Amino acid sequence: MQTPWDYRYAQRTQRMTSSTIRELLKLTEQPDIISFGGGMPAPEMFPVKEFGEACERVLRDCSAQALQYGSTEGYLPLREMIARHSVRYGISISPENIMITTGSQQALDLLGKIFINRGDRILVESPTYLGALQAWNAYGAEYIPVPSDENGMRTDELESALRTGPKFIYVLPNFQNPTGATLSLERRYQLVDLADRYGVPIIEDDPYGQLRFEGEHLPSVVTLDGQVNHIADFTYRGNVIYLSTFSKTLAPGLRLAWVVAPPEVIRKLVQAKQGTDLHTSTFNQVIAYEVGRGGFIDQHVKEINALYSHRRDVMIDALEEMMPAGVKWSHPQGGLFLWVTTPPDIDTGPLLKDAIERKVAFVPGGPFHPDGGHQNTMRLNFSYSRDELIQEGMLRLASVLTEHVKLPVG
Amino acid sequence: MQTPWDYRYAQRTQRMTSSTIRELLKLTEQPDIISFGGGMPAPEMFPVKEFGEACERVLRDCSAQALQYGSTEGYLPLREMIARHSVRYGISISPENIMITTGSQQALDLLGKIFINRGDRILVESPTYLGALQAWNAYGAEYIPVPSDENGMRTDELESALRTGPKFIYVLPNFQNPTGATLSLERRYQLVDLADRYGVPIIEDDPYGQLRFEGEHLPSVVTLDGQVNHIADFTYRGNVIYLSTFSKTLAPGLRLAWVVAPPEVIRKLVQAKQGTDLHTSTFNQVIAYEVGRGGFIDQHVKEINALYSHRRDVMIDALEEMMPAGVKWSHPQGGLFLWVTTPPDIDTGPLLKDAIERKVAFVPGGPFHPDGGHQNTMRLNFSYSRDELIQEGMLRLASVLTEHVKLPVG
Repeated sequence: MQTPWDYRYAQRTQRMTSSTIRELLKLTEQPDIISFGGGMPAPEMFPVKEFGEACERVLRDCSAQALQYGSTEGYLPLREMIARHSVRYGISISPENIMITTGSQQALDLLGKIFINRGDRILVESPTYLGALQAWNAYGAEYIPVPSDENGMRTDELESALRTGPKFIYVLPNFQNPTGATLSLERRYQLVDLADRYGVPIIEDDPYGQLRFEGEHLPSVVTLDGQVNHIADFTYRGNVIYLSTFSKTLAPGLRLAWVVAPPEVIRKLVQAKQGTDLHTSTFNQVIAYEVGRGGFIDQHVKEINALYSHRRDVMIDALEEMMPAGVKWSHPQGGLFLWVTTPPDIDTGPLLKDAIERKVAFVPGGPFHPDGGHQNTMRLNFSYSRDELIQEGMLRLASVLTEHVKLPVG
Repeated sequence: MQTPWDYRYAQRTQRMTSSTIRELLKLTEQPDIISFGGGMPAPEMFPVKEFGEACERVLRDCSAQALQYGSTEGYLPLREMIARHSVRYGISISPENIMITTGSQQALDLLGKIFINRGDRILVESPTYLGALQAWNAYGAEYIPVPSDENGMRTDELESALRTGPKFIYVLPNFQNPTGATLSLERRYQLVDLADRYGVPIIEDDPYGQLRFEGEHLPSVVTLDGQVNHIADFTYRGNVIYLSTFSKTLAPGLRLAWVVAPPEVIRKLVQAKQGTDLHTSTFNQVIAYEVGRGGFIDQHVKEINALYSHRRDVMIDALEEMMPAGVKWSHPQGGLFLWVTTPPDIDTGPLLKDAIERKVAFVPGGPFHPDGGHQNTMRLNFSYSRDELIQEGMLRLASVLTEHVKLPVG
């Protein structure tokens, strides 16, 4: 159908394309495909009973507020709860440092809206979260990729990248999307130190930090930044904007996340959000507060971690048993993803098409790299599928991969 | 607190300012202020029982879907329900013409994102919805204002405005925000005819269309556009993008609205929404579908209209009884607002400060006019407050106004 809208699209739409991840999510709607593509939590872990009780209580006691328009900053008791939670993790903040967003994706969009001019360069890990690139492409961002390994961003390459004048640094330090890697403590210190020295602020995206299965919790970048120059522990200096979410600890269907920032940045974000969706669902905010206020989330996260840790092990056992020689994978200490590297002659893009024919799906790793390349990588989600589906899915994937791996002649 | 973010704001933030409406909404949180400022539905009309039953059913029968990530387009059964509803109102569309948005404000933002280049001129009614200006200012829009009167946009001034090359026309034909005026049938025909002649597409924003208290329902602009050139009734030609919402018929706290557009525009909107908030709350979409699917909304709207019609009458009676000479007001046939014009020497900006001291609030009319002026106007909401509060509030407002009206000397 031809319409007068056809030749009216804004220039910026040229860089707006449908993300591989989102297109793949559609595949998971076909029930016969075993998908390791999406970043979906295990539905068995949704706190259905607690939601049900909260809905009942909220609709009985405060429906007039919960169903009405609310403030753009977000529901104050929820922001207070987040502030208390943050203090425990070493960030001393108050509700005026917090805005509730419609998922972390919205925080990324609004940060792009208030900070990114066309041509601004953002320093990112390579690979990095595709949704951030997608949000910021719309504002004309360019990227300065810094390579990463099993300990996260390679801080030995950071200084030369900082010299090229990035607007800010974007980093996912815990169980990164897509690699599952965690930034080591030593590198965290180097990151805040170098960022401080070059006066470049940081956006720390931390959707998975609480999903640690083993090993010690590492202080977040925003916490370490409060200790730079040894002024005082716990000071929120405002150099680091911190993002987190209820999508992995409660349920993604609520679209509830938050951003921690200096009050002046929060004011700008609020203005941007007013024009974007007025505010995040009041009902969902009140429900999340009701479910979370008694300390439920801490307890619940332990159960999530027990299940996800088990599923990670099932996946790694299956990979060890089934994968052809030359295929390698990471061993993440938490989160939702592990990262697979195939022999260099494999391109996981065409591989995916064959995999889908065998009714198994993953996300090719290439698009996560703003500098291109890395076609021989893939992201696997281990949180969503039950044991037998993980095993069956790995069997299918291994058989497709085995066909693609060119055996050495001789 | 000074931070490295301070000198990093994008250029576009210079045109992002906090809206008068949203700042005023904060006042309504003070319980002793009688506010006619916000555009808030009556909380007594929230279908609390139906929501409670729906929550229970959804959490029992489909929690794994309702709490999980969903598709960016929106929950298919909800889009099918909207398509069926639209056919009854003369727009023959299918779910591929519909995307669910996080409130209509998000539809405005996403339309700005995909269509507006810096400097593009949008043809708007003057006055018009402030939230549209706020959304589009961020993309660098300029405005071509066309004056309006008690019958909506003055189509006799439309042709000369169309000659100046607007990107699209933005119009709220039913019980407009802020004036409460309805575009007459004759002017609707003129609008679609002129738009068609000049090849300029239209965005029709219709949050209040179902809230008609009296008089005949008028066909929407998108419906009339389907009859241009008498091709065939009910054809969706795609020239008009149509917006509506569940905020006024169910509850604004759900943040649920929808956009009707050609499939190609929907595809672009979906790409933009992916980068903006991934998708609208699955939980809220499933709840709205459960509440709405049996035809509940039609019945419920009748009850809403009975109450709002009564409250409008209470407000108009109070205005007639209490207001000083020279103050005039509209008599809207539906919606949430009426429009007050004071004598020309009054500025309702400073008046508001005095009003707030007397614990009554409204929205000054000036900012709704992209061409400035009209300082002697104000918007009053009649849907939110109970009878005795409307009467007491009008008493307070009349006393402030009486002090400001300079009586003729003689």
